[in-house]
Amino acid sequence: MAQTIHDLQTPALLVDVAGFEHNLATMSEALPGRRLRPHVKATKSTALARRQAELGHTGFTCATITEVEGMAAAGLGEDLLLANERVTLAVDSEETIAAAAKGGVREVLIDVNVGLPRCGCAPEVAGALADRARKAGLEVRGVMGYEGHVMPMQDRAERIEATRISMEKLLAAHSDTGGDLISAGGTGTYDINTWATEIQAGSYCMLDTDYAKLGLPFRQALKVLATVISVSDAWAVADAGLKALATDHGNPTIDGAKVWFCSDEHVTYAAEVPPRPGDRVQLRPGHIDPTIARHLALHLVEGERVVDTWPVDLGGW
Amino acid sequence: MAQTIHDLQTPALLVDVAGFEHNLATMSEALPGRRLRPHVKATKSTALARRQAELGHTGFTCATITEVEGMAAAGLGEDLLLANERVTLAVDSEETIAAAAKGGVREVLIDVNVGLPRCGCAPEVAGALADRARKAGLEVRGVMGYEGHVMPMQDRAERIEATRISMEKLLAAHSDTGGDLISAGGTGTYDINTWATEIQAGSYCMLDTDYAKLGLPFRQALKVLATVISVSDAWAVADAGLKALATDHGNPTIDGAKVWFCSDEHVTYAAEVPPRPGDRVQLRPGHIDPTIARHLALHLVEGERVVDTWPVDLGGW
Repeated sequence: MAQTIHDLQTPALLVDVAGFEHNLATMSEALPGRRLRPHVKATKSTALARRQAELGHTGFTCATITEVEGMAAAGLGEDLLLANERVTLAVDSEETIAAAAKGGVREVLIDVNVGLPRCGCAPEVAGALADRARKAGLEVRGVMGYEGHVMPMQDRAERIEATRISMEKLLAAHSDTGGDLISAGGTGTYDINTWATEIQAGSYCMLDTDYAKLGLPFRQALKVLATVISVSDAWAVADAGLKALATDHGNPTIDGAKVWFCSDEHVTYAAEVPPRPGDRVQLRPGHIDPTIARHLALHLVEGERVVDTWPVDLGGW
Repeated sequence: MAQTIHDLQTPALLVDVAGFEHNLATMSEALPGRRLRPHVKATKSTALARRQAELGHTGFTCATITEVEGMAAAGLGEDLLLANERVTLAVDSEETIAAAAKGGVREVLIDVNVGLPRCGCAPEVAGALADRARKAGLEVRGVMGYEGHVMPMQDRAERIEATRISMEKLLAAHSDTGGDLISAGGTGTYDINTWATEIQAGSYCMLDTDYAKLGLPFRQALKVLATVISVSDAWAVADAGLKALATDHGNPTIDGAKVWFCSDEHVTYAAEVPPRPGDRVQLRPGHIDPTIARHLALHLVEGERVVDTWPVDLGGW
């Protein structure tokens, strides 16, 4: 096993243990036990999920069948919610209810659109869908509604008001569907959304750059390790690019340097102190979820020491 | 094996066989045999590389050690160029020459910066680096210089002039280094760059959306298959997002629909004819290379019929 980051082949994912453990502790204090239903799509690692379960969060949200199967195989399947209408436990239409019943699913949540133009039924038809699900022999555990459009709002008062409006829609739907669960929220509203019975957050473990602008008590704990392979007068090039990190939230950042652009296999940047070929450089990716999904392992580091390596064993679909 | 696209789990990559074979035939007629050194980083499949070798292109360009090892293991290692300064055959500094010699490499190309701010030495020091490489016991096969900054220029006359300026730099460097090879070019300059002895092109096989704007004779032959999982009044959602396709060249496109945005696992779009949950939808990704790198298989299709499946067996690093 790698002893330090200098033993790692690059590009490689580094998780800052101190920051990561701070994030998990902060969240489990704010939302103990079942108040948090961690979303494993963000981190795609059963080893990481086991840490969350050790802290009391034993119900999980999954985005894919592969994640559900992997979590169950790892003994973490006590209460899994598949929040994607593919085969599915979260349903928002007659077709997905029929598919759930046909696929042998027993319990569903009615997915309600609370403002983000993505999945979810109109709030006013949630009751009728719940009736239909019960007639199809399914147990309706309650509702789910993700206020994803609220997450980018940097003003906290604005976030609170938008969350309130969204959750009024979800509570109205819930009064028509019944069931114990009101599942909603994310890292950006984890301490604002007091209407939901459980919060689905995942990227709080590492924190996206956009979330870091919200004044949340979590720390950015993920970096991509790269090796400098070319140095010119004005710039340097390292071996991590579009295949190793997500740029849909903007380019990665490097302390003490300005990133110019990413290519398929490279990042071109200008450093205050020019590096030498062979030097290591650490990039902070803007968007956690699709960055982790490009890798096979998370290396846990304390400074430059690698203390553990967790497989990203929930990849694919 | 899947009989039609309806048997495939989504998201899945589809390669239009007619378009793909047209692209390979067009290229091998324009640049027969060793005039083309296909870049396998674009397609990451030894099965696909074997088709290129059958058409006479038996020398390949690789971006990673994994690609070199995979190509050699597949019997396609007759003449592999590792065009990345990591361990490496393409070198642009004293450090990378030392690393090549230490790593047991025998032959190098001097990588020259011809205008793209990325890898490559200044043209005027190429000769000194070649001397140094020879002193280190390495054979210098020639020069490499990628005119990547030329590729986005939509005006052909502008592309020709910019390529000429770049290749003058490369030829000047070559006169100082010696060696048989002048390796350069890409899909966007495959028929313009007449200075290079071999062209490194890869994405011509499937064609990026940006390249499609250049009036090249190649066709876009790659799609991402997705399943509609949610339908609302104004939009629909399918199960392929940022983890399944690259958006750094813009959102994917869908015939007869307008794509609104991509999320981690989803694409939200408005279709002229609203779909039903369970329908299949095909997305054309803007950028080929990092899209293929997110998948494990390429499904070759004729219409809706799946005629073959090739593993993306050169993934990772």
